[in-house]
Amino acid sequence: MVGFDNKRILDTIRRLYRRNSKVTLYKVINKMHPSQMVSVYRYLNPTERINIFSYILRMEGVGEFIKELDETLTKEIFSSLKNNEMATILRKMQAEDIAELIEDLEPEISVRIQELLNKEEQLEVEEVLQYEDESAGRIMSHEFMAFDSELSIEAARKRFREYGDEIEMPFYIYVIDSQTNKMVGVVSLRQLLLNTEEKILKDIMEIDFIFVSPNDDQEKVANIVSEYNYLALPVLNKQSELIGIVTVDDVIDVIREEATEDMLKMAGAGDDEDILLKPVIENAKTRFPWLMPSWIGGLCAMAIISYFESFMQEQLILAAFIPIIIGMGGNIGTQTSTMIVRGISTGHVNMMAFYKVIFKEIKVGAILGLIYGGLLGLMGATLANLSHAAIIPIVINAVPVQFGLTVGLSIFCSMLIGCAVASFIPIMLYKLKLDPAIATGPFVTTSIDILGVISYFLIASIIL
Amino acid sequence: MVGFDNKRILDTIRRLYRRNSKVTLYKVINKMHPSQMVSVYRYLNPTERINIFSYILRMEGVGEFIKELDETLTKEIFSSLKNNEMATILRKMQAEDIAELIEDLEPEISVRIQELLNKEEQLEVEEVLQYEDESAGRIMSHEFMAFDSELSIEAARKRFREYGDEIEMPFYIYVIDSQTNKMVGVVSLRQLLLNTEEKILKDIMEIDFIFVSPNDDQEKVANIVSEYNYLALPVLNKQSELIGIVTVDDVIDVIREEATEDMLKMAGAGDDEDILLKPVIENAKTRFPWLMPSWIGGLCAMAIISYFESFMQEQLILAAFIPIIIGMGGNIGTQTSTMIVRGISTGHVNMMAFYKVIFKEIKVGAILGLIYGGLLGLMGATLANLSHAAIIPIVINAVPVQFGLTVGLSIFCSMLIGCAVASFIPIMLYKLKLDPAIATGPFVTTSIDILGVISYFLIASIIL
Repeated sequence: MVGFDNKRILDTIRRLYRRNSKVTLYKVINKMHPSQMVSVYRYLNPTERINIFSYILRMEGVGEFIKELDETLTKEIFSSLKNNEMATILRKMQAEDIAELIEDLEPEISVRIQELLNKEEQLEVEEVLQYEDESAGRIMSHEFMAFDSELSIEAARKRFREYGDEIEMPFYIYVIDSQTNKMVGVVSLRQLLLNTEEKILKDIMEIDFIFVSPNDDQEKVANIVSEYNYLALPVLNKQSELIGIVTVDDVIDVIREEATEDMLKMAGAGDDEDILLKPVIENAKTRFPWLMPSWIGGLCAMAIISYFESFMQEQLILAAFIPIIIGMGGNIGTQTSTMIVRGISTGHVNMMAFYKVIFKEIKVGAILGLIYGGLLGLMGATLANLSHAAIIPIVINAVPVQFGLTVGLSIFCSMLIGCAVASFIPIMLYKLKLDPAIATGPFVTTSIDILGVISYFLIASIIL
Repeated sequence: MVGFDNKRILDTIRRLYRRNSKVTLYKVINKMHPSQMVSVYRYLNPTERINIFSYILRMEGVGEFIKELDETLTKEIFSSLKNNEMATILRKMQAEDIAELIEDLEPEISVRIQELLNKEEQLEVEEVLQYEDESAGRIMSHEFMAFDSELSIEAARKRFREYGDEIEMPFYIYVIDSQTNKMVGVVSLRQLLLNTEEKILKDIMEIDFIFVSPNDDQEKVANIVSEYNYLALPVLNKQSELIGIVTVDDVIDVIREEATEDMLKMAGAGDDEDILLKPVIENAKTRFPWLMPSWIGGLCAMAIISYFESFMQEQLILAAFIPIIIGMGGNIGTQTSTMIVRGISTGHVNMMAFYKVIFKEIKVGAILGLIYGGLLGLMGATLANLSHAAIIPIVINAVPVQFGLTVGLSIFCSMLIGCAVASFIPIMLYKLKLDPAIATGPFVTTSIDILGVISYFLIASIIL
């Protein structure tokens, strides 16, 4: 739908650009929401991007445009900006967004940006950068309203009118004890409107509030906001002083980014959201290492099969069943690991009873293995019978029942192994404080492949 | 983190329950946020769930608890409730949430619920149910503040104080033209506080507002809210009358649900968020059909390999390379389709120039295919040399260069096919207005498997 809604605007911008209608083009761009401009900008070709950015530079929302823009495109823009143009953009950005920019860009450009900031801004940015990447401290906004707990509603309303306009998302008024400088409560805008003028903030504030620490992971913050339906969460330092707030719009971005990252990791395609925008070579570079486990795993499978070469000489038909045995184990494993990984991140997997989760998966693997293994076993036995009767041109040098048992049991084992490995690995990774999402990728499927091939040839060499 | 934070509360509840400390248990539960209660409830065992629900039933937030609870657990609860207990819950629920409940539960229980509602509630619920599942009409709230455009700020503030307390999330005041009954603008709570008393709403309202129609897909609504950072979107009918609002907290739920659904679909594990909570048999039932393509694909691969049986008799070593050829094509295909599917849903794939996207993927496939194919080719040639010199116990009856070329070229083709198929199919599905997410699942990997096997044996039979 994003594509659809923006198609008309993209066409308009392209037309005006080709016709060189500068004034109209500027007007159209300036009327657009920065986020919408980002969606359109992605679809322009490189020459259009360079030229049209000179209009975007004069937009009121150029700061937000840069904030929302993909890293790859931001790098492209900043690599060719003059100092005064950079300064124009920086003046319209928040400290936390400048900090992110400095982290993302090439070192020489980051240095230039830091030089363009004044002392105060530099300090603010440094403060943000002291927190780890993807922490609450990195995404928190420094614009919030903190009022003294002794303030009357009337005075609070007056103060709100005075500087409420400067704050981007003023949902709550944070209440501070002037003696200790600690945050002691929160008052919603609605309570400010609902209560009578003579009351003081201390009387109407909510003292039971949830806060986070600046070092908390952004995913934790996102989970709290989505669980409790808050519009913003206060960030308190160790002394209980309010140092920032994380707002719901940033939380939505975090939720989307984390979902994209998880999906890419699960697919074994890195964790770079920007991958689609990157040039071919860089795209290939990102994906190359993630294919290595599968390549090495394939070589292991090759070694195993070669080991059984003389056995396979007698039972050539075994080769034909390799894809189905690998495929079924791999597919059921992908189902399992995806469910578990997503379940861990949404809180549906009870880590206090994780063995139950693994045990349940093994039971599911056994049931589905019995069904699909049974089906393949019947089919294998039938094929062997048909082969012996020379009805089909396939050579199966085995007793039908034994052959059916071999392929059926192999599917069963492969699916059982698939479920066990694919549920065990993500849970173990989580316990080891590693990211479970990498577990659904090539590592797990490759181990399942290898184990499946081993069990197949062992079963075959025992039964046949 | 969800698990971690709730562990203590879960332990407390379990302890109080075992000790039968009814009063304390009720106090603890009543103090909890309904969403937190949901997270804890999921981890209880069935007997605990039945008994502890009798305390939850008396919570103020029991309506929200049921709204947030997983479908499977809601069904479990409602299957054993008495009519008066159901009525208690329904009284604390919104029409849109009751409508969802009616849709989710067994028909006989849905009928009982409808009978418990009064005429007015029944009409409201029916109105919600007339919209399609996953549409804006289904998730919109009917609680909003709509004021006449001629109202003064002073009067608006007074009205707000009178019934602002009843509205759950009062971010905006919607302005209605009393003559036409159409929505004509929006005023934020902050503007209501910032402006002077004598102005009228018409003067301060924003007339450039974004709205959605009740039939719009919830994903579209979520995209708009996250793109423009709105806290709520008005839903207008064809006559431009305001019929509801979609709030940011529901949008966050939509984003998470859609991400989970997409991940499960991509993994070929259905699209049922609740799958982890389901009993073994139901879990297996959901996953069974999604494994069928892989099973059938495996049989096709078997038929193809059998067809080349006599050829393979001479070149037995070919069997050993089947897993690596299938694996590399499948893995690069999963990378591609995941990137494309996620790119489509986040607006990063430009559908106006989709051929460029496919062409780029093919180039990436060619580069990675050249590298991995080259590596395997060298290795294949070396192995053949070693085999001829009787240094390794593997029989390779082929000229080393030709053998290396065969396996190298096969990897190249398999990876090229993988990228082409995995980028083409999701884009085509999207163009056909089908869900691209199913494309990364077993269908795509299975087709890549089959095509990979065919190209492998064709190449081998030509070169060797």
